[in-house]
Amino acid sequence: MNQDELKAQTGRESVKYIQSGMIVGLGTGSTVRYMVDELGKQVQEGKLTDIIGVTTSTRTAKQARDLGITIKDIDDVDHIDLCIDGADEVSDDFQGIKGGGGALLWEKIVANASNKIIWIVDESKLVHKLGKFPLPVEVIPFGAQLVFNRLEKKGYKPSWRMDGDHKFLTDEKNYIIDLHLGEIDHPVELADELIHMVGLVETGLFLNRVNDVIVGTQDGPKVLHAR
Amino acid sequence: MNQDELKAQTGRESVKYIQSGMIVGLGTGSTVRYMVDELGKQVQEGKLTDIIGVTTSTRTAKQARDLGITIKDIDDVDHIDLCIDGADEVSDDFQGIKGGGGALLWEKIVANASNKIIWIVDESKLVHKLGKFPLPVEVIPFGAQLVFNRLEKKGYKPSWRMDGDHKFLTDEKNYIIDLHLGEIDHPVELADELIHMVGLVETGLFLNRVNDVIVGTQDGPKVLHAR
Repeated sequence: MNQDELKAQTGRESVKYIQSGMIVGLGTGSTVRYMVDELGKQVQEGKLTDIIGVTTSTRTAKQARDLGITIKDIDDVDHIDLCIDGADEVSDDFQGIKGGGGALLWEKIVANASNKIIWIVDESKLVHKLGKFPLPVEVIPFGAQLVFNRLEKKGYKPSWRMDGDHKFLTDEKNYIIDLHLGEIDHPVELADELIHMVGLVETGLFLNRVNDVIVGTQDGPKVLHAR
Repeated sequence: MNQDELKAQTGRESVKYIQSGMIVGLGTGSTVRYMVDELGKQVQEGKLTDIIGVTTSTRTAKQARDLGITIKDIDDVDHIDLCIDGADEVSDDFQGIKGGGGALLWEKIVANASNKIIWIVDESKLVHKLGKFPLPVEVIPFGAQLVFNRLEKKGYKPSWRMDGDHKFLTDEKNYIIDLHLGEIDHPVELADELIHMVGLVETGLFLNRVNDVIVGTQDGPKVLHAR
């Protein structure tokens, strides 16, 4: 199987964890696309009923709506039963980096409201330590260059996330700065330092939150239980 | 003198701290309005030259431009020499609450880039402990109700900042929630707790940062040196 087939396998597998009547947080990204496709299929076939989706990006919202999945605004639900999302890196101790697709803020808000979180990844995303994947941070446009300079001075090797000639804009119209850290020894301390920087809204460090990771491997989907 | 005259006196007094050639952070609010008026006058009269202003709100930007003050975008300067801003409460130990005007995020970003910070207030703003003035926090609209609910559960007595029938929108198109705390015993710990809440962008607690406070009193402006 190539990487795309691994993603498809994992995405489909994760739908088994969705039960009728659930409010489901729908992540963003290429693996999640397959999950949403499968969920839409099962909703259309009547295998899953009374499903409400809460989406983490305008992209996923469009895909889910087109498939006939009922979507509610996050402010119109009081909880989310299960959030299924991708991840860009998952470490041995189940810490994660997310935000490669630029949706980290909404993803974190949805995850934060969820009773259970499953990440779906192909095996290339499993790492010993986080940091090879550039860590995205979302920043307010006003004064963003100053935040960039401060990150540079700290030695965090920042680069602007671009969208062609322009700075990439998130769904909240903020910028993304990617930090090329190589290796993150102390993710909790780093997240704490970053979140205190004025103008920095959120980081792509998703710490101490995932419950299960479904990994696509050549031998089929493997479930890793974190907490 | 009534409160308005105290504000005018204080605003004008603070311009004495501006020297030709300075890059000046211009705050937001009713006292700051008087400061910007006086600065504009001195620029027009040629008493102050080569002044560059960096503004903390679209309102102040408009006022300053109309008065002929050169305005630069915060990302086009590498530092700010002096930031003059108002405050809604200043405690005995020079901690502050800002954001009554809804500009706390940009104000904090500008303050954070400034070598020196002066607050200009009338004496009604001086308090023993912070908290009688509702503490504003700026939140991302996506999922804002969940943040509100969480703040309510914590006993922080939140209320939505309104603008007529609609939720008030900041210059960054976020919402403001005001926390009616009464008394804040541990501002540093509170700021730390709040900033870690997902979806909460910034708080109106301005801690350990002001250098001087100019207070308008019936006996004339009084300068309190903090650090």
